Amino acid sequence: MASNLLRLSRPRTIACIGRNYADHIAELGNTRPTEPFYFLKPATTILQPKAGPILAPKNSNLHYEVELAAVIGSTVEELPNSKEALKAVKGWAVGIDMTARNFQEAAKKKGLPWSLCKGFKTFLPVSHFIPASKIPNPHDVELYLKVNGELKQCDKTSLMLFDIPRLLQHVTSVMPLEEDDLLLTGTPKGVGPVVDGDLIEAGIRVNGIELEEGRIEVR
Amino acid sequence: MASNLLRLSRPRTIACIGRNYADHIAELGNTRPTEPFYFLKPATTILQPKAGPILAPKNSNLHYEVELAAVIGSTVEELPNSKEALKAVKGWAVGIDMTARNFQEAAKKKGLPWSLCKGFKTFLPVSHFIPASKIPNPHDVELYLKVNGELKQCDKTSLMLFDIPRLLQHVTSVMPLEEDDLLLTGTPKGVGPVVDGDLIEAGIRVNGIELEEGRIEVR
Ligand SMILES: [Mg+2]
Ligand SMILES: [Mg+2]
Ligand SMILES: [Mg+2]
Repeated sequence: MASNLLRLSRPRTIACIGRNYADHIAELGNTRPTEPFYFLKPATTILQPKAGPILAPKNSNLHYEVELAAVIGSTVEELPNSKEALKAVKGWAVGIDMTARNFQEAAKKKGLPWSLCKGFKTFLPVSHFIPASKIPNPHDVELYLKVNGELKQCDKTSLMLFDIPRLLQHVTSVMPLEEDDLLLTGTPKGVGPVVDGDLIEAGIRVNGIELEEGRIEVR
Repeated sequence: MASNLLRLSRPRTIACIGRNYADHIAELGNTRPTEPFYFLKPATTILQPKAGPILAPKNSNLHYEVELAAVIGSTVEELPNSKEALKAVKGWAVGIDMTARNFQEAAKKKGLPWSLCKGFKTFLPVSHFIPASKIPNPHDVELYLKVNGELKQCDKTSLMLFDIPRLLQHVTSVMPLEEDDLLLTGTPKGVGPVVDGDLIEAGIRVNGIELEEGRIEVR
């Protein structure tokens, strides 16, 4: 029931994995990484349910990227690359890693940080909190994203190149994660542009059944 | 008196300006930017006074970068590029933007984010809080950094390419800043390597007189 849906608490750190699905790497003409990498989004990117619209920066080519987000349960340092690492995750969410793609291309060419192209206010629409119990296996769920009713992204998380324990291990080998911090686990293929007024719907299915907590509907 | 020194509160967002002093751009062989750019450090980089040592990542070429940090007083959106913007700053600190330089060079070549090379735990030693009243003109102070007693960096903030209002305007055109968030304003020339056990001392002088609040001493 809608009244039981919980919002995500405000995190301090949002770490986002890049290039974690082979077909998405191919569609952007990128190189496959030999180890995971991540960038940071500031907490001010978070757009809670019904808090839209997404604000498109001037002259930007704005892209959506639907992702599974892990919500950290308490401070963790140096997690192991094993199933144990998943104990650090108290729940999940669906998130859309909005990206000013043309600004990102420019940054990549110049070897500059991704902080601007990924970090504009409202650049992270999120679903409600999904309790861990609702997702028995986070590597076996389906993510989807539609624009104006048309399906654009729809893939299983089993396609991740690096699994979630490996991602957690990598990120925590650099920096601790804390309660309510988010780890976005990368986007599957099908990313593309949206313009002002487009309706974006996204969500997650477990065994073919959509989780109400995971629904995003935003313009 | 030492007993009156205040620690920085824990920020959510730490924005760090790159390439804001011409001689530093030259020493690293970088291109002079036509507008400011920034990257993010996670809050877990902060190393409060006497909380050392700095933890050097394996196989890293660890560099120091002394910087003037602005401490934000309350949530601000879209600050103007004028003296007015400085009203958003409730005080200052000295910070050392520790950087795994070889990891950064690799990221720049591949067009990858700077989050890892700038984001390791302990990668931001900070001084105590410097009340705004102690720095009448933040564009007219001297920053210095010594390694094992040898002076490595010593320059006036008047050498900044983009002044602090312009930096604040740029960053807040992308994302709001909130109370206790930090804006690091770039490093002057003289960056270089340190190894385990090296003593780093840094500080700030106003009209030639060192501010006790701004002292950093860390290994
Ligand atoms: Mg993404
Ligand atoms: Mg970055
Ligand atoms: Mg720096």
